[in-house]
Amino acid sequence: MKILTRTIEFSTKGHTDIIDLTPRIRQALAETGLQEGQVSVFAIGSTTGISTVEYEPGLVKHDIRNMLEQFAPYGKNYEHNKTWGDDNGAAHLRSTLVGTSYVAPFTNGQLLLGTWQQVIFIDFDTRPRQRRVALQFLGE
Amino acid sequence: MKILTRTIEFSTKGHTDIIDLTPRIRQALAETGLQEGQVSVFAIGSTTGISTVEYEPGLVKHDIRNMLEQFAPYGKNYEHNKTWGDDNGAAHLRSTLVGTSYVAPFTNGQLLLGTWQQVIFIDFDTRPRQRRVALQFLGE
Amino acid sequence: MKILTRTIEFSTKGHTDIIDLTPRIRQALAETGLQEGQVSVFAIGSTTGISTVEYEPGLVKHDIRNMLEQFAPYGKNYEHNKTWGDDNGAAHLRSTLVGTSYVAPFTNGQLLLGTWQQVIFIDFDTRPRQRRVALQFLGE
Repeated sequence: MKILTRTIEFSTKGHTDIIDLTPRIRQALAETGLQEGQVSVFAIGSTTGISTVEYEPGLVKHDIRNMLEQFAPYGKNYEHNKTWGDDNGAAHLRSTLVGTSYVAPFTNGQLLLGTWQQVIFIDFDTRPRQRRVALQFLGE
Repeated sequence: MKILTRTIEFSTKGHTDIIDLTPRIRQALAETGLQEGQVSVFAIGSTTGISTVEYEPGLVKHDIRNMLEQFAPYGKNYEHNKTWGDDNGAAHLRSTLVGTSYVAPFTNGQLLLGTWQQVIFIDFDTRPRQRRVALQFLGE
Repeated sequence: MKILTRTIEFSTKGHTDIIDLTPRIRQALAETGLQEGQVSVFAIGSTTGISTVEYEPGLVKHDIRNMLEQFAPYGKNYEHNKTWGDDNGAAHLRSTLVGTSYVAPFTNGQLLLGTWQQVIFIDFDTRPRQRRVALQFLGE
């Protein structure tokens, strides 16, 4: 049994920008040579999210944003914003709700995802950011 | 330390049908013979969810459905539906929000769940489906 | 590779009381002596939650509570309440939505959290409780 930690970096546009991590995870998995195990995907930062979705523009550019805007709208004057003079209270709330941690199993060197199921990173912050995600592979 | 991957299959009714996975997980755990470790539960498919709940009819048949209907109603005309001619945009949104990945620890061969805490699979899709869930046991 | 399970206990005030678990996790990690691996944080109980947030009073005392009150208000007469004569249907719904399971990686003996990203326990129940959280360390 081995444990291997990798960090991937990329830039985002913020405002619930949704990035498909699946190709990067597949590549990193292939490089480990592991056949059976799991990858923990962890988003570093308190205005981020990790989840899965069918990565198509209707959901990714519109529907997810509209859903989240209903209960954590960007324009609202949150107590968080008053504390720090920030404008990103909505981003923190979305992160706490969606979560920043995901575990995906693999067998025969292949992730056990559904055909239309991709692992996504979401940047909820209110500005473009440089982001890091930890990929930790456990297996043999 | 061992890693053992099992897949369980079952049929659902869709429309936020909630299945108690706990007995199947307990049985699979007993079959592994592992005493200390964790099980990763991963729902394969982009219109599914994994979480925990007290599995009683009030929550499972009514309250959870009513809550989710507020922010991702089934009848709405999502951009996703326009993209594919689908009718299941709400199912995808619920999946992204609830999540499809769960990790539960065990010691002395017993899951560390609360007395009224069951691990559930949710089928958010708009029709009956045959489903697969990966159970990956890590431990000794 | 080692697997080590610890249970931490603490009391809460209920009503979406949010506790910062990060110092306890860091201390438990230091005591294991592990350098590379992950900790699974699992909240035992069906009216609890685990997530991450920037732990500052605006979010923790106000914004998160206000957000959750929108779609699972405490005062509503849920079917769950009718089933058991309980008053905590809202607590169960919040638990299912937020989730009770989290996995955080560490390298060089340090958690890979963002600077303002803390791991939190949330007690959604409607009264003070004594709570237990499982911390399971996997690594070497």
